[in-house]
Amino acid sequence: MSIHSFHPPQRTLMGPGPSDVSPRVLEAMARPTIGHLDPLFVSMMDEVKTLLQYAFQTRNNLTMPVSAPGSAGMETAFVNLVEPGDRVIVCQNGVFGGRMKENVERCGAEAIMVIDDWGKPVDPDKVETALKANPGVKAMAFVHAETSTGTRSDAETLVKLAHAHDALAIVDAVTSLGGSPLKVDAWAIDAIYSGSQKCLSCVPGLSPVSFSERALETIRTRKSKVQSWFLDLSLVMGYWGGGAKRAYHHTAPVNTLYALHEALVLLQDEGLENAWARHDRNHQALKAGLEAMGIRFVVDEEWRLPQLNLVTVPEGVDEAAVRNRLLNDYNLEIGSGLGALAGKVWRIGLMGHACKPQNVLNCLAALEATLYGFKAPIETGVAIEAAQRVYGH
Amino acid sequence: MSIHSFHPPQRTLMGPGPSDVSPRVLEAMARPTIGHLDPLFVSMMDEVKTLLQYAFQTRNNLTMPVSAPGSAGMETAFVNLVEPGDRVIVCQNGVFGGRMKENVERCGAEAIMVIDDWGKPVDPDKVETALKANPGVKAMAFVHAETSTGTRSDAETLVKLAHAHDALAIVDAVTSLGGSPLKVDAWAIDAIYSGSQKCLSCVPGLSPVSFSERALETIRTRKSKVQSWFLDLSLVMGYWGGGAKRAYHHTAPVNTLYALHEALVLLQDEGLENAWARHDRNHQALKAGLEAMGIRFVVDEEWRLPQLNLVTVPEGVDEAAVRNRLLNDYNLEIGSGLGALAGKVWRIGLMGHACKPQNVLNCLAALEATLYGFKAPIETGVAIEAAQRVYGH
Repeated sequence: MSIHSFHPPQRTLMGPGPSDVSPRVLEAMARPTIGHLDPLFVSMMDEVKTLLQYAFQTRNNLTMPVSAPGSAGMETAFVNLVEPGDRVIVCQNGVFGGRMKENVERCGAEAIMVIDDWGKPVDPDKVETALKANPGVKAMAFVHAETSTGTRSDAETLVKLAHAHDALAIVDAVTSLGGSPLKVDAWAIDAIYSGSQKCLSCVPGLSPVSFSERALETIRTRKSKVQSWFLDLSLVMGYWGGGAKRAYHHTAPVNTLYALHEALVLLQDEGLENAWARHDRNHQALKAGLEAMGIRFVVDEEWRLPQLNLVTVPEGVDEAAVRNRLLNDYNLEIGSGLGALAGKVWRIGLMGHACKPQNVLNCLAALEATLYGFKAPIETGVAIEAAQRVYGH
Repeated sequence: MSIHSFHPPQRTLMGPGPSDVSPRVLEAMARPTIGHLDPLFVSMMDEVKTLLQYAFQTRNNLTMPVSAPGSAGMETAFVNLVEPGDRVIVCQNGVFGGRMKENVERCGAEAIMVIDDWGKPVDPDKVETALKANPGVKAMAFVHAETSTGTRSDAETLVKLAHAHDALAIVDAVTSLGGSPLKVDAWAIDAIYSGSQKCLSCVPGLSPVSFSERALETIRTRKSKVQSWFLDLSLVMGYWGGGAKRAYHHTAPVNTLYALHEALVLLQDEGLENAWARHDRNHQALKAGLEAMGIRFVVDEEWRLPQLNLVTVPEGVDEAAVRNRLLNDYNLEIGSGLGALAGKVWRIGLMGHACKPQNVLNCLAALEATLYGFKAPIETGVAIEAAQRVYGH
């Protein structure tokens, strides 16, 4: 056996995540490892917490990154808030609502499903009906930005409904955090989780979470122990809870936290609203270009996520062959469809560091050449021209 | 709010982990992020698996890194193998046996404890008595290398006892993997987990695990779903299981896996037996130096881990003050005692990349100056001289 060092190519990541990582973040991650109880590391943890509070727009004290990917952040929310015998309303309009259902059931609780079509937002009327029909449910859970469909749901309205029926609101913000408006305190979200590798443009491996005081009270008054030792917030907070004295719980992923810190400093320096505006502007340019090529969006305009564009594969086109050619000839990754959408759609991401004009233009040029090979039915360069008009060139 | 980039100091990490990370590993981790389903990434995953099989000395097909720290690796073993109502014998001779107990109980199972003093190995006679007294237990779990005490237990003998009573053997090898002899197949271990940040000298955040065919069969014939969605091996293996087609489960921590790949290439290039010998040799030198200063080891020689040295703080010495001075004046981290040993001992690590003569000599010189300030009762330089004799200088 003789295996050599691995040298990945330089891709442009315009799929559903991970997204391109800033060189500043990669460089930060390669700084020397120090101990997870080193006083200097503890100071950095405090800064990560402050920066995450800014990104989430919250003052929640329990705001921190879980030491594992977004799926573990989801599990953190459910295992801490849900106990055996509880009932939870779960809204499903894509892959990740289904994963929430799995989580609820594995907690020994009952998931009451509210189903909407893939590519449609969660319907508040259906949610209200379900809440009325099931008094005393512990929580209501939904996905703010469905990564499988590029669809936004109206988080503010849905949280209000949950609270009107005395249920906690659990929100999946894996794809929204940093890319489009999200206001944890203003919308009164009780538990939220995200991922490091989407619009924060950090490497994958961490899941920022935040819990309201009401969620904390629910955890404090649990009847049973949290089924996961690793994700038990009453233990994790001994390490992340603030103050000079930190109790060892698990060994923090030190270097990945350097990366998250740097990614959040970049977000702070740009300004959250500016980041949201940047995602929207590049989305408008991409949209103009795609539509000029005759490619249609699946999601209604009002509910589209700027950072994740779900578009229909033109008739007669082998979608996998196009993706492979983009990857091999252009080092450009775009995403395929999941579940029922497999083979029918592409998911083109414009997340974080990848969300910039040069990527929009490069993607349009590569798609145009790959799909039409500089031949009819479209006029050469029409996509680029349409996008450039949005940029004002 | 204005938070700046974080620049950690260059420490020498001689605590219980994380250990020093090779510059080659840090550099590999900073390579460009690519997609977790990119064909080139999938090839790299196959190499990580092969390299881990070498490190564990196993042909187990289910050998892979869990996308989270060692505590999650521990939880992976228990939630997949243990079901509600099962009984599991848990050996405890330090902190991590206690954590195993927590895991067993949170699976709804009963933990039958076999207790040994901290700093003593697990006593096979007690284990045999417990196995005889509790026929039909599902598994027996113990820590091969107790990170809280620097104590080795006789894994081969303990696994044999478990199998003689038809119980699965679950082994914590967080601190042993790569640092001292560990042979998963020869010893017939059924489930084992480790950490990336100890003797593999990778950054923290991953937990290599390996499961035998018998363990897999136990998972396949479970009566209930695994309580953790994130750690459910029947799902994780759709991604890590091999073959060209990988099903998305969670987003892998791409860059941390680059780091693990590089750390394992370094281990392969050095040779596992050479790495074990290096740990032993530097331990002998450290031991000679510490003993020349009158510092005593806690664990009996036969059961000492070369990679983690538990020594008694000399009488009248403020152990925390010494550690702080080593950290601040020498950028040198050593570990404190946990639990009942807090304040009484130091844990001096010689793990992976940190396990080299210059660190042994630097640590001895720094300790000597800090403890005795070039004054009596010991002759100046006596510790260095003793260590150098071991190195043959």
